[in-house]
Amino acid sequence: MVVKRDEAGGHEVGDDEARGAESTARRGRRPGASTTRDEILAAARRQFAELGFRRTSVRAIAREAGVDPKLVGHWFGGKAELFVASVQLPFSPRELADRIAQGDPDRVGERLVTALVHGVLEDPAARGRGIALLRAVATEPQLAPLLRRLVVAEVLTPVARAIGADHAEVRASLVASQMVGLLMMRHVVELGPLVERGPDELVALVAPTVQRYLTGELPLA
Amino acid sequence: MVVKRDEAGGHEVGDDEARGAESTARRGRRPGASTTRDEILAAARRQFAELGFRRTSVRAIAREAGVDPKLVGHWFGGKAELFVASVQLPFSPRELADRIAQGDPDRVGERLVTALVHGVLEDPAARGRGIALLRAVATEPQLAPLLRRLVVAEVLTPVARAIGADHAEVRASLVASQMVGLLMMRHVVELGPLVERGPDELVALVAPTVQRYLTGELPLA
Repeated sequence: MVVKRDEAGGHEVGDDEARGAESTARRGRRPGASTTRDEILAAARRQFAELGFRRTSVRAIAREAGVDPKLVGHWFGGKAELFVASVQLPFSPRELADRIAQGDPDRVGERLVTALVHGVLEDPAARGRGIALLRAVATEPQLAPLLRRLVVAEVLTPVARAIGADHAEVRASLVASQMVGLLMMRHVVELGPLVERGPDELVALVAPTVQRYLTGELPLA
Repeated sequence: MVVKRDEAGGHEVGDDEARGAESTARRGRRPGASTTRDEILAAARRQFAELGFRRTSVRAIAREAGVDPKLVGHWFGGKAELFVASVQLPFSPRELADRIAQGDPDRVGERLVTALVHGVLEDPAARGRGIALLRAVATEPQLAPLLRRLVVAEVLTPVARAIGADHAEVRASLVASQMVGLLMMRHVVELGPLVERGPDELVALVAPTVQRYLTGELPLA
């Protein structure tokens, strides 16, 4: 899973950013710009980690990176979008959704939980970013729409739609409740019986839940 | 669900506090003490809400309540225990576990999710306390053991044991992951498709997951 980033991306991550990179290349922007963008992200990462979301300001990040705050706004949008960019989501949502939706529909739950467990929970860097995002969302109501968009709207709902599920949004939301709950209880609350389970065993335990939410007969009106 | 509180409870809530109240009565403590305890809790509730867990101090709470900080320590234990007492968990864990474990074992999932949905999610006061606890645990690692104890060790694991489940702790932890994830995604992230579902529909959707975790054939070594 590779995330391409560029200075024209703004509000979107993943595929949109990759497209942004191409259009930027066509416009022939100076090569140094991406370094400045990296400096903004490094400053954002440092300040969000030290001060938390609320006490960090775009102005202070711009000052540390040595750029005009308006440039930060132009490249990233608001503080919430800058936060999301700084936690470096380790996937392109659309690529991930496409990959998971392909193959046997009866094993889509297994593929989704495998992506969560092996791609996030068992990868220290990705797990750290996931926990940071979860902690931030838990305390800052204004970040909730970002989690809704990144996880539910851009990954889980497209997966449900791609396999032809009815009530795709409800199904995706139920899947999200189990997957976020697993991240929360295994890595924030650190429940021993979940921490001790190996990744493959965890997939086998949780995949049937996700499978039922996606393809099972649900009592949905 | 009634929680009895008294000034001798200290580290436990629920049944232990009820017992504490009896032993206090036997020791004949002055009647005014419970009022002082209420004042400490009110000060704690106010300061935790305003300042968050980290920036609140036992000393400042004691000052507001007009008591010696040592008395707060004697009655409640540490700051984390005082926090838990101040969020007023709306149930006695043991009574709740006993009630849920009784009845048809094939419907224990339904009883558990009903208790969560009707007892917590659909009750504004209880929901507020649940969200406050979840937010605090998400940001303060030192509170994680309290959630582990209150939810998993004192409710879900006793339920799993009472119905004769093998691997009771793993099963209880899986149940916790789904139930906490539902609280998180419905009321912190506020996923529309979950918010819009009525309580009974929500129970029907999630109960089979909890039922499988408690009584299903799981791939557990």
